[in-house]
Amino acid sequence: MGTARVDHMLMVLAVSLDMDAKEREVITREMIRGFNDTAEEAGTAITGGQSILNPWPIIGGVANTVVKKDEFLVPNRAQVGDVIVLTKPLGTQIAVNLKEWKSKNNDKYKKALKLGIVTSDDVEEINKVAIHSMGKLNKNAAGLVNKYKSGACTDVTGFGILGHLENLAEAQSSDGLELRINKLPVLKNSDKIEESIMNFNLVKGYSAETSGGLMAFLKEKDVKDFQNELEVKYGEKSWVIGEVRERKEGNKATIAKDVEVIYADSVFC
Amino acid sequence: MGTARVDHMLMVLAVSLDMDAKEREVITREMIRGFNDTAEEAGTAITGGQSILNPWPIIGGVANTVVKKDEFLVPNRAQVGDVIVLTKPLGTQIAVNLKEWKSKNNDKYKKALKLGIVTSDDVEEINKVAIHSMGKLNKNAAGLVNKYKSGACTDVTGFGILGHLENLAEAQSSDGLELRINKLPVLKNSDKIEESIMNFNLVKGYSAETSGGLMAFLKEKDVKDFQNELEVKYGEKSWVIGEVRERKEGNKATIAKDVEVIYADSVFC
Repeated sequence: MGTARVDHMLMVLAVSLDMDAKEREVITREMIRGFNDTAEEAGTAITGGQSILNPWPIIGGVANTVVKKDEFLVPNRAQVGDVIVLTKPLGTQIAVNLKEWKSKNNDKYKKALKLGIVTSDDVEEINKVAIHSMGKLNKNAAGLVNKYKSGACTDVTGFGILGHLENLAEAQSSDGLELRINKLPVLKNSDKIEESIMNFNLVKGYSAETSGGLMAFLKEKDVKDFQNELEVKYGEKSWVIGEVRERKEGNKATIAKDVEVIYADSVFC
Repeated sequence: MGTARVDHMLMVLAVSLDMDAKEREVITREMIRGFNDTAEEAGTAITGGQSILNPWPIIGGVANTVVKKDEFLVPNRAQVGDVIVLTKPLGTQIAVNLKEWKSKNNDKYKKALKLGIVTSDDVEEINKVAIHSMGKLNKNAAGLVNKYKSGACTDVTGFGILGHLENLAEAQSSDGLELRINKLPVLKNSDKIEESIMNFNLVKGYSAETSGGLMAFLKEKDVKDFQNELEVKYGEKSWVIGEVRERKEGNKATIAKDVEVIYADSVFC
């Protein structure tokens, strides 16, 4: 974690058998184009990989970097007083589901409309921000996390933010730390879904994210500079979401009972 | 090519949605077990990866090794007089298709029986050898290819043996080389299929292989030692299949018109 360089990358591609020839041609080409564009943005190139036929289209890859021992962060050095910063809002899983419900015009979507939880425009707006978020690399943030010598850092993906925070709590070399989240930046209205429509455990911290941001532990004195540099240099937002507090014994990851949910209407400044 | 060490490995796994719960549980578990066993055999361990849901089951991975510049072979140093050695027979694609035709008892299989091209037992036997072949790592052969300082080497997979030989011809730094195959070791009776049932271009050199062997160029003086060491130390067969001859201009990969097709009834001694 904390290396912003990618040496090379392999691609795994499944060409869909469930598409007709025209769909398959156009969609596969665009998938590869997007993948190559992002690799270029990451400063690397696709040097090989594997293609298969499969009912569903799939694209993915493996990025590799060889670094010296002092060129990467070991995420076990959190300390009391550290401030926790998050570089992308939460809620991508909900945004993508909402969009799918809308495209199917299913009961969940109809209920959400009827209850006034979201409007049709809301769904589009949340989805747009989610796409921007998922398409944004963690490269710039990773460079700064490294520069400011973060004591612990992880990306937020399938385990949800609390799941990843629990992993960090376990990984610490110090004992007696409470890794505490007191603010949850989420995609607008995404939290309202789980009250009445479907429980994603977003506010409990367990909603899975796709291509989530970095959750980085910084010294309090560095937080302003980190956020400022990320904004001014790269135009990217970040949020202070918590802190590390003292605890009698053992390490624990928690979300405060009075956690403040805030809405992120963009991931770029 | 030529490094027999794997530093670490990531796994990609698709759990099948088209299987019922019991099938999915058993088959996915066995797939992972086989993958882990083979990783262990290769002297490495699975350190992470990605799982997805998908109609079909998929398993694969990416193996990484970091080596110094003098620890791997650059496959562009073939020379006139080099002998070409192959470490697995050809025909895996045909063996797998035959087995599938038999399990469906389809027209192709019925025709093959009727014409006396294969018997039901043949299909099982070829398939068994193919499975042994596909399950055999190239690790031991790669170590020896490196030890005997092969001038060029490639594995034989999706392009077929001639396709891969053409890649080697293009890659050479010397000019005026004919990379010539005069012997084709194939799984027993697999060549007979394409005459009457379905054209895989096996004897033309373009039948795709799954987990194929290494095709290595060796100095003539080293061939006996290479083959002997592979047999005695590891119990693995290999075949001399061709040579590098002089050519007026340009490099070319060829299969001799009078190529000799021989049957491999095992991949182990």
